[in-house]
Amino acid sequence: MLSVHFLPDNVTVQASAGANLLQLALEAGVHINAACGGDGACGKCRVLIKSGTTESRECEKLPPDDYAQGWRLACRTTVLSDVVVQIPHETKLDMKSVREARVHAHETRYAVSAAANIALSEVSPPPVAKYALTLTPPSINENAADLTRVQRSLKKTFNLHAASIDHSALKALPHVVRSSNWQLTASVLGRRILSLEPGDSSAAQYAAAFDIGTTSLWGQLIDINGRSVLAEVSSYNPQIQFGDDVISRIVYSQKKDGLARLQQTVAAELNQLLAELLDKSGIEAATLSHITAAGNTVMTHLLLGIDPKYLREAPYVPAAVIVPQLQASAVGLAVPECVPLFLLPCVASYVGGDIVSGVVASGMYDSEKLTLYIDIGTNGEIVIGHRDWLMTASCSAGPAFEGGGLTCGMRAAPGAIEGFNIDEGTLEPMIVTVGRKRPRGICGSGAINILAAFMQAGIIARNGKFDRSFFPQRIREGAAGVEYILTPAELSATDADIVITESDIDNVIRAKAAMFAGYHALLEKAGLAFSDLQQVIIAGAFGDYIDLENAIAIGLFPDIPRDRYLFIGNGSLLGARCGALSDRCLQLAETVARKMTNIELSEDHSFMDKYISGLFLPHTDSALFPTVTERLARKGKSSS
Amino acid sequence: MLSVHFLPDNVTVQASAGANLLQLALEAGVHINAACGGDGACGKCRVLIKSGTTESRECEKLPPDDYAQGWRLACRTTVLSDVVVQIPHETKLDMKSVREARVHAHETRYAVSAAANIALSEVSPPPVAKYALTLTPPSINENAADLTRVQRSLKKTFNLHAASIDHSALKALPHVVRSSNWQLTASVLGRRILSLEPGDSSAAQYAAAFDIGTTSLWGQLIDINGRSVLAEVSSYNPQIQFGDDVISRIVYSQKKDGLARLQQTVAAELNQLLAELLDKSGIEAATLSHITAAGNTVMTHLLLGIDPKYLREAPYVPAAVIVPQLQASAVGLAVPECVPLFLLPCVASYVGGDIVSGVVASGMYDSEKLTLYIDIGTNGEIVIGHRDWLMTASCSAGPAFEGGGLTCGMRAAPGAIEGFNIDEGTLEPMIVTVGRKRPRGICGSGAINILAAFMQAGIIARNGKFDRSFFPQRIREGAAGVEYILTPAELSATDADIVITESDIDNVIRAKAAMFAGYHALLEKAGLAFSDLQQVIIAGAFGDYIDLENAIAIGLFPDIPRDRYLFIGNGSLLGARCGALSDRCLQLAETVARKMTNIELSEDHSFMDKYISGLFLPHTDSALFPTVTERLARKGKSSS
Repeated sequence: MLSVHFLPDNVTVQASAGANLLQLALEAGVHINAACGGDGACGKCRVLIKSGTTESRECEKLPPDDYAQGWRLACRTTVLSDVVVQIPHETKLDMKSVREARVHAHETRYAVSAAANIALSEVSPPPVAKYALTLTPPSINENAADLTRVQRSLKKTFNLHAASIDHSALKALPHVVRSSNWQLTASVLGRRILSLEPGDSSAAQYAAAFDIGTTSLWGQLIDINGRSVLAEVSSYNPQIQFGDDVISRIVYSQKKDGLARLQQTVAAELNQLLAELLDKSGIEAATLSHITAAGNTVMTHLLLGIDPKYLREAPYVPAAVIVPQLQASAVGLAVPECVPLFLLPCVASYVGGDIVSGVVASGMYDSEKLTLYIDIGTNGEIVIGHRDWLMTASCSAGPAFEGGGLTCGMRAAPGAIEGFNIDEGTLEPMIVTVGRKRPRGICGSGAINILAAFMQAGIIARNGKFDRSFFPQRIREGAAGVEYILTPAELSATDADIVITESDIDNVIRAKAAMFAGYHALLEKAGLAFSDLQQVIIAGAFGDYIDLENAIAIGLFPDIPRDRYLFIGNGSLLGARCGALSDRCLQLAETVARKMTNIELSEDHSFMDKYISGLFLPHTDSALFPTVTERLARKGKSSS
Repeated sequence: MLSVHFLPDNVTVQASAGANLLQLALEAGVHINAACGGDGACGKCRVLIKSGTTESRECEKLPPDDYAQGWRLACRTTVLSDVVVQIPHETKLDMKSVREARVHAHETRYAVSAAANIALSEVSPPPVAKYALTLTPPSINENAADLTRVQRSLKKTFNLHAASIDHSALKALPHVVRSSNWQLTASVLGRRILSLEPGDSSAAQYAAAFDIGTTSLWGQLIDINGRSVLAEVSSYNPQIQFGDDVISRIVYSQKKDGLARLQQTVAAELNQLLAELLDKSGIEAATLSHITAAGNTVMTHLLLGIDPKYLREAPYVPAAVIVPQLQASAVGLAVPECVPLFLLPCVASYVGGDIVSGVVASGMYDSEKLTLYIDIGTNGEIVIGHRDWLMTASCSAGPAFEGGGLTCGMRAAPGAIEGFNIDEGTLEPMIVTVGRKRPRGICGSGAINILAAFMQAGIIARNGKFDRSFFPQRIREGAAGVEYILTPAELSATDADIVITESDIDNVIRAKAAMFAGYHALLEKAGLAFSDLQQVIIAGAFGDYIDLENAIAIGLFPDIPRDRYLFIGNGSLLGARCGALSDRCLQLAETVARKMTNIELSEDHSFMDKYISGLFLPHTDSALFPTVTERLARKGKSSS
């Protein structure tokens, strides 16, 4: 690891060789002016390399004389050695706490992957076990059936009694036992022999694990014996063409052939991902042992071809939450008949297998710490509890956190404004986009960062309205109301201004208010307060990109000590992987799903009251956000 | 029942109105001359009706004057009231013992059907149970999944815990529960919900039971709740086109696509039978709950599409004997996916599910009596034992008992000579064919009756050779050696003489010697003698038509008290029906199959010795057949 030291902040961060300097500054909480997202178009992110080796593409925005003196555009520069960087203007913003939170988040992210590794390395047999058997050949005096021989060997060698056999395996049996001198390997699920191979192939066992998200599909190919991931792939869920969110998919499923089309569409894409996984890892489909998948309740219903109609109608009843194991081929997956599919169990119509999967993979189900588990998306899911009890709820946050419902909203794809900062002295913004492309729009985590920066700089008031006197050159009356120009048309990728409107800000506030009211209402039902929380687990890819301090600043996450936060990334995929590796994990998932008490918040008065209180930055009740309130007060004092 | 009294024999038999007089005489052991099989062509079966009402078609062979005096042709006459019949010539043959045996056989046949009824009426749930459920409708405060509701109801109402559900049933679940006000009926196998219907349909449950014989297929449609057979059908097994016996089918299975063709052919015919069953009983395929089937080991392998190659090669190892339950649709049966198929378990390559089925249905497995169970066919299967132990073997009897391997052999179809008798005074034969059509050939039971009559009349010697001096007008040197003309060409249906040759007789003797050597060798292995047998059960349609006394006379069945004999007809079909009605019967079949020790006789020296000793009528060791020997000795004395 290299060391990069920023002056005058006196902040040092660890970096890999080749890391981008603008990105490093953002992650370190060091402000560098940047208006074009990191595309090299605005020329504002000039820095002076005081020592060390960097590589930097030349750029018309940087005069050759300046380049000769050591000036570089941070967005165009990668570090190749330990480097000391001088930033040419002093930042007024106190970024220290933010920086610490970021560094801490980085550490906890590492910590949880260690925790996950422990879960994943647990020595527990997979749901489908491969047993190598050596049979006694028959003679005229002992001519018991082939299957009887296999059953005896399973009993004697592996203490597995009364095994039955699937029809396809039985058809293969006479040839398999005789093709390799009465040595064979049986793949067994519970007491069912699913398939047979000649010789000893027990060392080669592979499974696939999928996360079936409303927006994205993720897959991993897993080497069961090596307990490793051989390949990982992802793609959009192509059901998006029939509707962005679960509700619109349910609506589509009620059309003629709608359900079948939704089912086939996702199955086809999973087959595509599976083919990629096999291709990447050099594994043949015929050697695949089993498949696990986790998805929310609607995705689970759709994959199984079950009408999701009643998930959407009060009283919101799923067809099933604990789905029986079935043949993967029965849902259209292009694998041999003998490959079973295990779906992580759901809890209720809006608390699905993705959440159960994460609760198991994160170890929350077994923790003594009172834990809040949060998965943020269009539907935010919340779990509160510890090893003795678990309560869960979902709240409809709306699409703001996925970039939906914003005038210039977009998913976290290249060009999405994500990193955002304002120099309170110069009021210059620091804009860094995903992939450092010219800005195309704002993604969910970007919106949170923008709101937090606006709050901190006083650009918006506690009710989310712009202070129009404050920053007139960037605030104007647009077609959709009052708006702030993040990127002017000439620097954007869309040839239009990238703006955020008061109405956009209102949408983000509603979204965070719904989430926060959810935790609050659940805690209250359990007779607990935020201060009782010993651990907060943030799941989901969105959580991976979110800035913890900013999320707390706007009132999305509770204002408790930052070291209680843990980020687990895609908990759904992690749990699916754990299930593929360990039958005990699959069993645990059922136990956990049964243990989780679902609370319907949609018709809960306490939730509604709390939601109204949350429509303020960070909250109407400032006592709930002591550190945020204190920082705003300090800033108010220092600026007044 | 009517009473028919034959003079001068002074024999009375019970008869139904409309019964045929020639048939009644045959069954009563009363000789009436008949040469044309009962077709009205020879005019020999003249009888005088002394009293009572009969109906008789006129016939050119009976002059009108004789008709006016009360003479009738027995083959054309049916009885309509109590009748006294005078037979115009005295029979010299002492038929008393034969008659008693026949009457006894009739009684035991009745007795066993009563025993079967007890087995069939046993109150034990069927393998697939239908449970009518009334669910609590969901509310916003209690919105557990549909499946959870069903599981709770099964647990509470029927004490059935942790039920799982098949994919197809799960897909139907949301609509089924809501279409009939939360009332539904679940079809459950073990703890698996196979299918669901709205409302309470538990009173309507139907199953099909099949016997899959090498030659014939039999099927029954069963009303589970009524414990009754709604329809019965049968047909030839169309696999016959690929080979008459199991060995030639195995040979065919090794050709390209041979196995698949054999599998599809029998499945298609079962579908045809199923369609007939449903049509006859007015039941819809969709309401079929489950299917049971029993067949020998080769038939079982072929139905499942399992290569039977190794059944035929030493050491004769089946792929499986206890076949796991599977979807009937998986073997090509045209029923919904949810319908399971239960195959009665086999014991070894040549002792199959048909035998296990009969051993269960006959109650032998639970009897305290030392029992010999015999199923006669191309392969004869034998079981010896009682409730504590069971030994089994098969012996290749050859096709003689199915009419194969005889010059004029045929199956027991219309025109087959079955009833046969010789008036020892006049040496006139009494020939009655199946369906009383003009003779076409000889069936297996007919061949036994012919041999017994030949022995009794002294037409053949103990070694099976004709006494050519004895009856010169019917014995001649034919193309295939010495032969006896049963029916001359002018009275036959084939316009050719129907004959039985010395070589035919030799084939029958070899067949009965193989069967007898089988019982004998098995008994000897158990350290037992024939006199220890407390019960002999004869299974198979062939057994239904066999004349017990004649079968003993030729040495096919052991010469022990006749009241120890029991005829159960198609034991395979009976057991399949028991299994369809009772899960306990299916479980028992597994237990019984495991309990049966198979003895391979094909390479057994003791068996070979006994076989050689059996190539004599009734046997080389006449002490084994005391009553037969005594009768022959008496006859020898009286005729000498």
